[in-house]
Amino acid sequence: MENPPVTESVDLERMQRRLDEIMSIGRTEDGGVTRLAYSKEESTAFDFVRSELDDSIEIRTDSLGNLYASPDLESAETTLVGSHLDSVYNGGRLDGALGVVVAMEAIDVLETGETSTAAPPTLAVFRGEESARFGCHTIGSRGALGMLTVEDFSRTDQNDVPLWLAMQRDGHQPSDLSEPMLDLSRIRRFYETHIEQGRVLVESGDDLGIVTSIRAPVRYNVTVEGAYDHSGATPMGLRADALAAAGELITAVERVASDTDDVVATVGDITARDGAINKVCGEVAFPLDIRSDEVPSRDEVERGIFDEFSRITDKRDVSVSKAEIDRSDPVSLSESAIEELTGAASVTDAEYLQLPSGGGHDAMNFQQAGIPTGMLFVPSVRGISHSPKEETYPESIRSAAIATAQVLSTPDT
Amino acid sequence: MENPPVTESVDLERMQRRLDEIMSIGRTEDGGVTRLAYSKEESTAFDFVRSELDDSIEIRTDSLGNLYASPDLESAETTLVGSHLDSVYNGGRLDGALGVVVAMEAIDVLETGETSTAAPPTLAVFRGEESARFGCHTIGSRGALGMLTVEDFSRTDQNDVPLWLAMQRDGHQPSDLSEPMLDLSRIRRFYETHIEQGRVLVESGDDLGIVTSIRAPVRYNVTVEGAYDHSGATPMGLRADALAAAGELITAVERVASDTDDVVATVGDITARDGAINKVCGEVAFPLDIRSDEVPSRDEVERGIFDEFSRITDKRDVSVSKAEIDRSDPVSLSESAIEELTGAASVTDAEYLQLPSGGGHDAMNFQQAGIPTGMLFVPSVRGISHSPKEETYPESIRSAAIATAQVLSTPDT
Repeated sequence: MENPPVTESVDLERMQRRLDEIMSIGRTEDGGVTRLAYSKEESTAFDFVRSELDDSIEIRTDSLGNLYASPDLESAETTLVGSHLDSVYNGGRLDGALGVVVAMEAIDVLETGETSTAAPPTLAVFRGEESARFGCHTIGSRGALGMLTVEDFSRTDQNDVPLWLAMQRDGHQPSDLSEPMLDLSRIRRFYETHIEQGRVLVESGDDLGIVTSIRAPVRYNVTVEGAYDHSGATPMGLRADALAAAGELITAVERVASDTDDVVATVGDITARDGAINKVCGEVAFPLDIRSDEVPSRDEVERGIFDEFSRITDKRDVSVSKAEIDRSDPVSLSESAIEELTGAASVTDAEYLQLPSGGGHDAMNFQQAGIPTGMLFVPSVRGISHSPKEETYPESIRSAAIATAQVLSTPDT
Repeated sequence: MENPPVTESVDLERMQRRLDEIMSIGRTEDGGVTRLAYSKEESTAFDFVRSELDDSIEIRTDSLGNLYASPDLESAETTLVGSHLDSVYNGGRLDGALGVVVAMEAIDVLETGETSTAAPPTLAVFRGEESARFGCHTIGSRGALGMLTVEDFSRTDQNDVPLWLAMQRDGHQPSDLSEPMLDLSRIRRFYETHIEQGRVLVESGDDLGIVTSIRAPVRYNVTVEGAYDHSGATPMGLRADALAAAGELITAVERVASDTDDVVATVGDITARDGAINKVCGEVAFPLDIRSDEVPSRDEVERGIFDEFSRITDKRDVSVSKAEIDRSDPVSLSESAIEELTGAASVTDAEYLQLPSGGGHDAMNFQQAGIPTGMLFVPSVRGISHSPKEETYPESIRSAAIATAQVLSTPDT
């Protein structure tokens, strides 16, 4: 099949340069990047994106710091396309940044080529997608869609700074967030490109993925309480060791989730309060994250984990308390957007595959707000993500930009 | 039996006041105390002890910051008596401080009463007994006895400050530490009172313990390496989860040690490097502490633990590395000092018991240096130590001071 008109104009070198420049903001000694939600680094990355936009593009920043840029911000209709710029601690080059750079490229190509578009596209770049800093995800896009709660604003980071204060310190004054800040009636579609963060594409050998649904997490903060004792003088049988108990709880999480298909459960962090080499530890805290496409499977694993927790605490002299911090529903993406992306992918040279997303993304909030939403995935080399070693293939980046420009240039079906 | 002459003069109220004043230096919000090795708080506690000494007492501070105080620092013979003033993170009121306060009280009583002593006593207060800050124990007493190594000086705290720098920042300029700084030929005995930090006395109902031997630790820093991945997008079967592996390793430590009498093994702290709620954790570190009175039993548990580590890493896609940071020998205390303390305890109203010590103490270094050494224990209420809830009985404090004054006033047998 003949290449679509946009293909020749997509500039892989420009995209790689933009990814490199964003990567340089918050780079760590380990070769990764730490660009947390509402940090100075995240703001600097937003400034970089602004500096790359053509003079003909109108720019607006909302009261949460989200960025919108379009040839016509007041058009009757628009297609939103974009992603986020924050990262986890010591994350990689592509998570978030790739979706922004692909969106910029598609808009650049359409503007330069004066290709007719279904509606003027709008670059949308959201703050704070990652939950690494505040323990809650997609802050910017949920805020834009009127989905943030008072509880979200009082979440604190590891220095006990609440979200609302971090926003204010970064120069934002959010107000009246119970309603969407976006005029939803103007938005015909939302598209996002993201790195897969799993191993499906790299194992199937496809260049591009078209996302069908998004797994959603249930999350808890778990605290284990035992008793502090001297490590040398307290016989094993007289201990109430919170860390040994936590060890057993964490392996139980892994075991229960491994027994059920299509569910993942993770303890990705741990704190031994006042821990020391010569103490039996009396208090341990860890987060728990359980995800699936299917709520019933997820519920089953959740029940299984907490049954195991009860069994373990019954035989040990410790107590476990848990605070639910998130319960999101899995989201099926728009069939029309999936069709459009599949059609666009078929006119590139890329091999592509439809698959579910393991991680949550800004896209899921748009679908939940009633905007037909589609997502493209590029492969994670060796399945690695949230890591300095996060990589994809140059041809996948190129194909994602071509497919995105293609759906933006296609009239409504 | 008639009370010994010193009994009436021992002033429990004075001891409690001194304990309270020391407790106020470094007090935490949780009602505990953090007075780490070579911290400002530890130095302030030393200043407090100096301020409580009578004008007739000669004071010397050595190049490590250890304090010696005696009516005659140049006498041909002396009996050393004392303990330490540092604490673990969020520790209690008695660990270390009690031994200093009991020694001060015994010397006060003997001086005031002009009781004849076997040799002029010397109050000895050592820096940095706890390993909480630098991972190595009894820094001050080992330095005084020529037992510190170059490796000890390069140990770092959690802010990567090495021991030598912490000492210099606190105003000490240690030099020529290959030889004892103390003239060992002058020292006829070393006595130390300490809280038991176990449950033996509180379960037997005795007021005082006379220590027969000291358990010694083998210690390691253990690192588990797996792979970082996205928590939502990485199927359970494709993970190399360092934290889940660490959970299994820690429960194995507990299980192996529980299977052998008179050995304890503890993981008292843990760090999930770059941990986050939405990541599979790729690197975890924890310390391992194994102790016994008996080297063969300890060796057996150490082998058993590392066999389990091999078994666990063989079935998981993670690697474990371990760095030995301590290997000390258990110490039998002097039979003559045990006899003297038993005789002294028998002339108090206290019920007493001979028992081994679970924890290491400054006393063990003196015994190893060839000084006949004895230790008294007071009970740990509910067995709690290294905790804000650390407590003992007032009568035990009083009895320890009487027995200490008694052994100081007894001529050599």
